[in-house]
Amino acid sequence: MSALKRIAISVGDLNGVGFEIILKAHNQIKQVCDPLYCINYTMAHQAAHLLHTQIPNDFHMYKVSGEFTIEPGKVSASSGQYSYDSFISAAELAKSKSVDAIVTLPIHKEAWMKAGIEYVGHTDALRDLFSCNAIMMLGCEKLYVALYTEHIPLREVVSHIQLDPLVAFLLQLFSETVHEPIAVLGVNPHAGDHGVLGDEEEIIAAAIERANAQLGREVFVGPVVPDIAFTPRFRQNYSMIAAMYHDQGLAPLKALYFDEGINVSLGLPIIRTSVDHGTAFDIAYKNKASLSSYINAVSSALDFIQIKRGES
Amino acid sequence: MSALKRIAISVGDLNGVGFEIILKAHNQIKQVCDPLYCINYTMAHQAAHLLHTQIPNDFHMYKVSGEFTIEPGKVSASSGQYSYDSFISAAELAKSKSVDAIVTLPIHKEAWMKAGIEYVGHTDALRDLFSCNAIMMLGCEKLYVALYTEHIPLREVVSHIQLDPLVAFLLQLFSETVHEPIAVLGVNPHAGDHGVLGDEEEIIAAAIERANAQLGREVFVGPVVPDIAFTPRFRQNYSMIAAMYHDQGLAPLKALYFDEGINVSLGLPIIRTSVDHGTAFDIAYKNKASLSSYINAVSSALDFIQIKRGES
Repeated sequence: MSALKRIAISVGDLNGVGFEIILKAHNQIKQVCDPLYCINYTMAHQAAHLLHTQIPNDFHMYKVSGEFTIEPGKVSASSGQYSYDSFISAAELAKSKSVDAIVTLPIHKEAWMKAGIEYVGHTDALRDLFSCNAIMMLGCEKLYVALYTEHIPLREVVSHIQLDPLVAFLLQLFSETVHEPIAVLGVNPHAGDHGVLGDEEEIIAAAIERANAQLGREVFVGPVVPDIAFTPRFRQNYSMIAAMYHDQGLAPLKALYFDEGINVSLGLPIIRTSVDHGTAFDIAYKNKASLSSYINAVSSALDFIQIKRGES
Repeated sequence: MSALKRIAISVGDLNGVGFEIILKAHNQIKQVCDPLYCINYTMAHQAAHLLHTQIPNDFHMYKVSGEFTIEPGKVSASSGQYSYDSFISAAELAKSKSVDAIVTLPIHKEAWMKAGIEYVGHTDALRDLFSCNAIMMLGCEKLYVALYTEHIPLREVVSHIQLDPLVAFLLQLFSETVHEPIAVLGVNPHAGDHGVLGDEEEIIAAAIERANAQLGREVFVGPVVPDIAFTPRFRQNYSMIAAMYHDQGLAPLKALYFDEGINVSLGLPIIRTSVDHGTAFDIAYKNKASLSSYINAVSSALDFIQIKRGES
């Protein structure tokens, strides 16, 4: 009788570093949870062979159909499709409560596009699968960054800075993390310098004010000057930052905490964490991938299982 | 007979941390150069009094007219005007070759606006003063970041991604720094993910290709994924990054090297360096400001004097 929580693990793009990380971390991961790997034997065997190793006996798999030849570092429709199927299998296992959480390895967006998959990423697909508004948050205990907009072209960012959706985002972020204070970034350089460099900060300021009023205290602070928010002095007082767009939050975060960071989807009925790096095609099957982010992602999934239980 | 180079120092916004830094660093600075401070005695005395100290005997001043009451931490038109006058005096001293370089302390953009000064920053004003296209570069030996666009609203960034100006920027950056390789960032998340998240990377790729063709070798690399460019692994191979916009480059740079970073204006007939922090109104006259960036700025100005001499 095992008390270990069950975690479904999607293997990511098999032409990337995902499976190497999974295999190498297996002995460590199985000490803290009961992992179920979403892959079939043929594909697992093929990947293990490329890594000059074998599938361990206690490597439990949930069969995901499909077969193709792994080509390390290559963007391909077949690999994109398989990574999607592995991910959807894991999500369905969590939806039916067959597992307690899912951890996802990186997919390649262009491979998904080649496979005709309409989503630009895991979070986007989960939002559709569960018909709800997930928030993408990345980081580690020292610093979490939640994204208001994610995978959209830079030219579209500013048009998304609108009062009602921003207030809803802030309130959802707080309700899912119970973290305070939270620094909310401006969108323009110097947070607009009081209108000299853009005026969307007026909307951000109004959203902060309204969200704080609803919570009855100053949970949110800002709009903070974006290039100051990640300096050591500022980080002494804030360990959660709400960024207005992808690179504003993630470039500094990854500069500081690349290997240890994880990715969490907040606001879903299931618990999902992920590594925060990509498929790293350049080092695929070269015995160079770091395990830290994956191990932290599993460990965070276990933490979130505790938080969710506390809520219910 | 002194062999020390003469450096004119503009005092920045006197309601901020600039003068405290100047005074505290004076004994160290005068060992490596002959500093000429652009301020009048009355204002210097007032600032020193607020800092509970006195003006040293060997504190040489270039008289900048004007008088007002310093109010630590306050955005004011009079302080904005004085910081501008101090800066222009320093620039004119360099223009007339009365000094070998200038080092500027931070001004406050809103204070400049209140004073009716049309420029959004030092670099912008220098561009106009010398009728040339200066490039703003920030950083330290470990990592320099040059900005293609600077103090403009985020909504305007993408419209500036155009082939000819970008090629000109890259070639100028190389000619002024003789640094290679230089990583050139994309503008969209994931550098557009091959068109899924924006297509301006096609223009950036074409600019890189044309600039490299002109130089006859691969000086420029990219478009690089913006949130990967500042990770430790990437930085092992690149110590100069060309960013497409302000926060893309400066948020990660300041996350990594806040206190030591400096600001250089490339492409001017004079040498100008600056601290890379702001007026820090929240700690003005509180004995908390760090001297490192200023000391590095003076030291870099001396380095650039050597480089310029090597060129001529």
